Amino acid sequence: MGLVVQKYGGSSVADAEGIKRVAKRIVEAKKNGNQVVVVVSAMGDTTDELIDLAEQVSPMPAGREFDMLLTAGERISMALLAMAIKNLGHEAQSFTGSQAGVITDSVHNKARIIDVTPGRIRTALDEGNIAIVAGFQGVSQDKKDITTLGRGGSDTTAVALAAALDAEVCEIYTDVDGVFTADPRVVKKARKIDWISFEDMLELASSGSKVLLHRCVEYARRYNIPIHVRSSFSGLQGTWVSSEPIGDKKVEQAIISGVAHDTSEAKITVVGVPDKPGEAAAIFRTIADAEVNIDMVVQNVSAASTGLTDISFTLPKTEGRKAIDALEKNRPGIGFESLRYDDQIGKISLVGAGMKTNPGVTAAFFEALSNAGVNIELISTSEIRISVVTRADDVPEAVRAVHTAFGLDSDSDEAVVYGGTGR
Amino acid sequence: MGLVVQKYGGSSVADAEGIKRVAKRIVEAKKNGNQVVVVVSAMGDTTDELIDLAEQVSPMPAGREFDMLLTAGERISMALLAMAIKNLGHEAQSFTGSQAGVITDSVHNKARIIDVTPGRIRTALDEGNIAIVAGFQGVSQDKKDITTLGRGGSDTTAVALAAALDAEVCEIYTDVDGVFTADPRVVKKARKIDWISFEDMLELASSGSKVLLHRCVEYARRYNIPIHVRSSFSGLQGTWVSSEPIGDKKVEQAIISGVAHDTSEAKITVVGVPDKPGEAAAIFRTIADAEVNIDMVVQNVSAASTGLTDISFTLPKTEGRKAIDALEKNRPGIGFESLRYDDQIGKISLVGAGMKTNPGVTAAFFEALSNAGVNIELISTSEIRISVVTRADDVPEAVRAVHTAFGLDSDSDEAVVYGGTGR
Repeated sequence: MGLVVQKYGGSSVADAEGIKRVAKRIVEAKKNGNQVVVVVSAMGDTTDELIDLAEQVSPMPAGREFDMLLTAGERISMALLAMAIKNLGHEAQSFTGSQAGVITDSVHNKARIIDVTPGRIRTALDEGNIAIVAGFQGVSQDKKDITTLGRGGSDTTAVALAAALDAEVCEIYTDVDGVFTADPRVVKKARKIDWISFEDMLELASSGSKVLLHRCVEYARRYNIPIHVRSSFSGLQGTWVSSEPIGDKKVEQAIISGVAHDTSEAKITVVGVPDKPGEAAAIFRTIADAEVNIDMVVQNVSAASTGLTDISFTLPKTEGRKAIDALEKNRPGIGFESLRYDDQIGKISLVGAGMKTNPGVTAAFFEALSNAGVNIELISTSEIRISVVTRADDVPEAVRAVHTAFGLDSDSDEAVVYGGTGR
Repeated sequence: MGLVVQKYGGSSVADAEGIKRVAKRIVEAKKNGNQVVVVVSAMGDTTDELIDLAEQVSPMPAGREFDMLLTAGERISMALLAMAIKNLGHEAQSFTGSQAGVITDSVHNKARIIDVTPGRIRTALDEGNIAIVAGFQGVSQDKKDITTLGRGGSDTTAVALAAALDAEVCEIYTDVDGVFTADPRVVKKARKIDWISFEDMLELASSGSKVLLHRCVEYARRYNIPIHVRSSFSGLQGTWVSSEPIGDKKVEQAIISGVAHDTSEAKITVVGVPDKPGEAAAIFRTIADAEVNIDMVVQNVSAASTGLTDISFTLPKTEGRKAIDALEKNRPGIGFESLRYDDQIGKISLVGAGMKTNPGVTAAFFEALSNAGVNIELISTSEIRISVVTRADDVPEAVRAVHTAFGLDSDSDEAVVYGGTGR
């Protein structure tokens, strides 16, 4: 008998009808001879409503209490889902993160899972139950306080449980059919990806693809748990994310997996930095001490005449204020002329392990952007990704141009192949 | 430093404004030099909304999952309350029933508290926190499942915590000013009672007074925890419930504490029962096996000509169907002619320890009813209570008549006193 972990997001259980629909799908998996563990998010807008309430009561809700509040959402959805399953004549028991053995550190609102001890889940399964587990939450190891895992935490819960229970697959049910070669809202001709490697999925996730979060994919890769991303509204096969294609499927690794974009970042340029050792370190130490996460970094070539240079980096818009404040505060120590802040930027990334062995990918990427009249402001690359920063307004057109250029459009015959090695 | 347990009901924390108002009151108690433990119910209609959701998903929600669902309500209110207190500059931590050490049996939806181990609460208090505890919920001793305590469970949580923490007082905040000599919606001249003994309060509670539930008062009496019932909307003194009047208050025990009424019961008459030993036992064994709680029982004098008698008893209307079914099913074994079911009855009860030593109370009670033209159908008495069953329609008039006759009206000079002993 196989063990399957299924995760349903808030849009799949938005109301009583949704819960009943999901219950039927779960029972089907059970009838197919599987042991079934289900991770569920809060219903529809519940979390947002709770956040609203908190803000009415306090402008700065405290971490511990905020987590206590938010976890009520999953408690509601998981209990209702268990009832709906029982109503279909099958046994089900719901478990909080704490009861399910999801042990985390003590960082409220964005805790990390440090251990999973699913003894009660195992017992429930052995007794013939379907186990329903609250996503997004755990209990801290030291203080035994309720914690939440932050955005996308339910996916991470599902993968972590799948790993701890040695599941065959972790199915992530959502309101889209899977992972696409680009955001279908931007690129009408985007194609569903049948299979993608963990590595490519990680790059897509960190480049703006929102279907799976980086942390969840990273966890799955570490424990080699295949993820199947699929729609809870259709019965279709979705996207498999795993180290190798699953079963007898002959899916070849595409050269290019997809095009991701991200308009949630801003760019800060530190102008007039003395071009001497230790300056960049001083800047990024300041940023790190302010607990701001940065993405891309570029240092201009120094102008020989002045001995000064500019350093630019990108970061989430939401952390812009914090970074500016920290830099201004340390301006005397660092020594720079001025700061420029630009939140009208966008990032376009091309991801695919195939670019390691296919030369010309970078050139083709830049050509596609150039043909579309898109100006490039920053460039950053990894082994299997190229990213550029452009004006935010240019992003949709740029994504479509690149998607077409690399043969990813759904009416293309085949993905474009490049000969030789290297790029 | 004193330790105070405060309990706030759902109407006191119905919205963000209510939560902030309650937070201020709590902080005041803390500023007055007390250690403060707060037990809170779910906000306003939350519990009813959750029940609605459950019924949409399943016609017969299962006990364990139903409890998991309902406890989300207190989780929300307690977290918000803790945030609101922190926003006023005081430290607060919220605790679920389980975290607070409220250990219960495993009877879901109406569990009983079997132990309270408030170690975490004590620690939180010692660290200077205000402790906020979810009412109405606990964790089962054997299975470690979440349980709920049934109607009025938050009051019981508060009293149980007060007992375990050896509190000076358990303050029950509600939307009325205290316990009244009769229901003010029926008797405009009802008076707030300043002090009432546990015994009289127990009788009032079991006779239809809804301010405090029997179970909560019983718990307080067993551990001798004074209860102060008061309004969360005013700063007024409410009603003290304790073994003796508190402090330097010279409050004498009134002869009559109040008049309670109850229209939630029905009457079943078992007609044509053979008047021989074992018949009544057979009837009430049947009722008990069906887990139906009964209240008053009357057996008519047997008609000598037939050797048959009638037995009547009262029970909650909600259990009428169950009792009828059980009796009909066992009719061959019991042997009776027919059943009569009457749900248009009401019960009026006069409560007061003074009636033990004041003769004439019973007579005056019946005279008042007679003068009001109210017909008595059943009578039952305890040492400190007389109850009668009448037509439901007669209840308001009967309550007012009795209230006036015993000098309880707010414009009376003094309660009526009867000489001699016995009644």
